[in-house]
Amino acid sequence: MSTIHDVAELAKVSVATVSRVLNHHPSVSQKARLAVQDAISQLNYQPNANAQALAVQNTDTIGVVVTDVTDAFFAILVKAVDKVAEKHHKTILIGIGYHHAEKEREAINTLLRKRCSCLVVHSKALSDEELTDYLNNVKGMVIINRVIKGYENRCISLDNQKGTYLATEMLIRHGHKKIAYIGSNHAIFDEVERRNGYLEALKTHHYPIVEHAITHNSPDFEGGEQAMIDLLSYNKDLTAVIAYNDSMAAGAISVLNENNIKVPNQFSIIGFDDMPIARYLIPKLTTIRYPIDLMATYAANLALSLVDQKIDPPPAIQFNPTLVRRFSVETIS
Amino acid sequence: MSTIHDVAELAKVSVATVSRVLNHHPSVSQKARLAVQDAISQLNYQPNANAQALAVQNTDTIGVVVTDVTDAFFAILVKAVDKVAEKHHKTILIGIGYHHAEKEREAINTLLRKRCSCLVVHSKALSDEELTDYLNNVKGMVIINRVIKGYENRCISLDNQKGTYLATEMLIRHGHKKIAYIGSNHAIFDEVERRNGYLEALKTHHYPIVEHAITHNSPDFEGGEQAMIDLLSYNKDLTAVIAYNDSMAAGAISVLNENNIKVPNQFSIIGFDDMPIARYLIPKLTTIRYPIDLMATYAANLALSLVDQKIDPPPAIQFNPTLVRRFSVETIS
Repeated sequence: MSTIHDVAELAKVSVATVSRVLNHHPSVSQKARLAVQDAISQLNYQPNANAQALAVQNTDTIGVVVTDVTDAFFAILVKAVDKVAEKHHKTILIGIGYHHAEKEREAINTLLRKRCSCLVVHSKALSDEELTDYLNNVKGMVIINRVIKGYENRCISLDNQKGTYLATEMLIRHGHKKIAYIGSNHAIFDEVERRNGYLEALKTHHYPIVEHAITHNSPDFEGGEQAMIDLLSYNKDLTAVIAYNDSMAAGAISVLNENNIKVPNQFSIIGFDDMPIARYLIPKLTTIRYPIDLMATYAANLALSLVDQKIDPPPAIQFNPTLVRRFSVETIS
Repeated sequence: MSTIHDVAELAKVSVATVSRVLNHHPSVSQKARLAVQDAISQLNYQPNANAQALAVQNTDTIGVVVTDVTDAFFAILVKAVDKVAEKHHKTILIGIGYHHAEKEREAINTLLRKRCSCLVVHSKALSDEELTDYLNNVKGMVIINRVIKGYENRCISLDNQKGTYLATEMLIRHGHKKIAYIGSNHAIFDEVERRNGYLEALKTHHYPIVEHAITHNSPDFEGGEQAMIDLLSYNKDLTAVIAYNDSMAAGAISVLNENNIKVPNQFSIIGFDDMPIARYLIPKLTTIRYPIDLMATYAANLALSLVDQKIDPPPAIQFNPTLVRRFSVETIS
C-alpha cells in the first residue's frame, strides 16, 4: 500500500503539504492541491483515518451502544443513527451491551478509546452514578430511552407509563372486564413504567387489580408464549391482555390460536413498540407506537451538535407514545 | 482527560516505557510495568486506540459491510461477527451498503481508511472485477454470500439453488399439481439461483412451467402481499407457493388469510432463510434454513486468521441449505 511519503514524492511537495490537503487546510496553493489529489488518485492512496483522527483529535465516527442488534428495536435505532452519520459524511461504530453492566461499560470505553467524541448510548444495566460520570466527562454523549437527573437535556426518552395507560383505557372502553398484563422479567425501568401505566388505568376506572392476571417472562416471542400459557392456566375469565412488547404479543397470539381462542372475536390484545412484526401478525396488531426511529435521529443530531459548533442543535422535542389501531381489539358484548 | 505524559510522570518512567506497556512489549521490567498499570488506573487514563493502531499498523476492529441492519438476516450476521470479535477482544465497525454500488464502495473504503485489516463483506451491487481488485489488495477481506472466481477460499456462500429445489420437491411429494414461485425483483444472483432451483425441480418431475405462476416483487412483507395478490389474480388452480424469503412468505400468508384461503389445509407455502419470523407466523412456516449465523462466524474467524498468524484458520466447511418442517405444508388430496 502506498504511504503519504509516496504521495508527497509523486506530487513533488512536502509531506506536510499532503497532510494539509488531506485535512482541508486553507493555506495550500491550488497548484499543490491539484498535484496532491492527482498523486492520491494515481497511487490509489488511502489516507490513514487513524492518523487524521489524532491530528484533529476528533474522529469522523459516531459511536452507538445498543443492547442487541438482532432485536428490531435496536436495529431501527442503529439505522437511524447511520442515516444521520451518512448525511454528515461520517460512519458509525457500534458496541453491544446485552443488558450486562460489564459489557455496556466495555462498549462505551472501547468507543471512547477509539476517540468517538459523539456517542448515542442505550444503557440499562449501568447505574445512574456511572452514567452521570460519563456524561460529565464526555460532552458529546447522549442517552436514549432513559433519563439521568441533571442531564435531562441530553437524555431522549418516552413516557412508557402513558403508553400502557392508553392501551388499558382502550380495552376498558371496549367493555373488557378482566384485563391481563404480560410484563418483561428484565430488571429495567421500562418494565416498571409500563406496568404502572396499566395499574394506574385500572385504578382510575375502579377496576380491581388481580394478582394472577399479571405475569412476567423474557421479553421475546417465547416469553410471550409462556406468559400466555400461564395466564390461561391461572384465569378463566380473561378477555384481553396488554403485552410489554410486540414480540411477546406475537407469542401470546400464537398460544391463543393453538387453544382455539379467536383474536379479536373472543380475545383482544395490544402490544407495545410498533415494530414491523406488528403489521405481519394475523390479525395485524393494535399496539403503542414507540418512535425509536425519530428519537434516534434526534439523539444523533444532538450528539453531533454538542461537539461540532457548525452543526445546529435540533429543536427540543418531547416524544410521545401513540396508539396504533389495527385489528387485534374488539368490543366484548 | 489525562495523557500518556501524565502517566509517565506519575509512574516515574519515560513515555516510551508507557507505550511499551500499552503495546504488551516484552522488554519492560516487572517493576516498571506495575508502576505504569498503577498510574493508568489512578489517572483513569484511556489509551488512545488511534495512536495504538498507527503504532502496530493494525486496528483491533473487524469491519463488516451489510445491506441493511433492520433486515433480520443482516442483524444476525452482524451479531455473529461481533461475538467472534468479542472473543478476540476486538470490536466491530459496520458499513451499510443498501444494495447500491456507490454506497457499498464507500462503506468498504471507509473501513479501509480506518485501517480495518479484517473485513467481512456482503456486497451484491459491486462487480466481480471490483471485488477481485479489493480481494487482491486487502488480504484480510472475506466475502459472504457470493463467490468471486479465483478467491473461492475467501468466499463463504450457500447453494441457493439446492434450497429451492428441496422446497419444490417437498411440495411435489405432497401431491401439489400447480406450484407458484414468488421471487425478488432485486437484480441479485440469489434470485436467479433460487428461481433456477424451482425450475429445475419442476423439470426433473416433468411438471410444466407456467409463466403466470412466477412473479417478482420487493423482497419484504409488502412485496410478498402484492406478489400473492398477483398470483391469485392470474391463476385459479394454485395450491402451493415457494417464496424467495420468509418475509415474502409472511406477506403471502396474510393475503391468503384475507381471502379466506386456509394455510395449510387449502394452500401450502414454503419460505427461505429461516429467520425468527418463520416461527412467529400462524401456521409456523416450513422453510429452507440459511445458516447465516454459522457462516458469519466462520467468515469472521477466517478474516482474522488471514491477518493474524497467531489465529488458526477455521477448518474449511461447505455450508448447506436444509429443510425445516413446520406447519405450512400439507398433502393435497
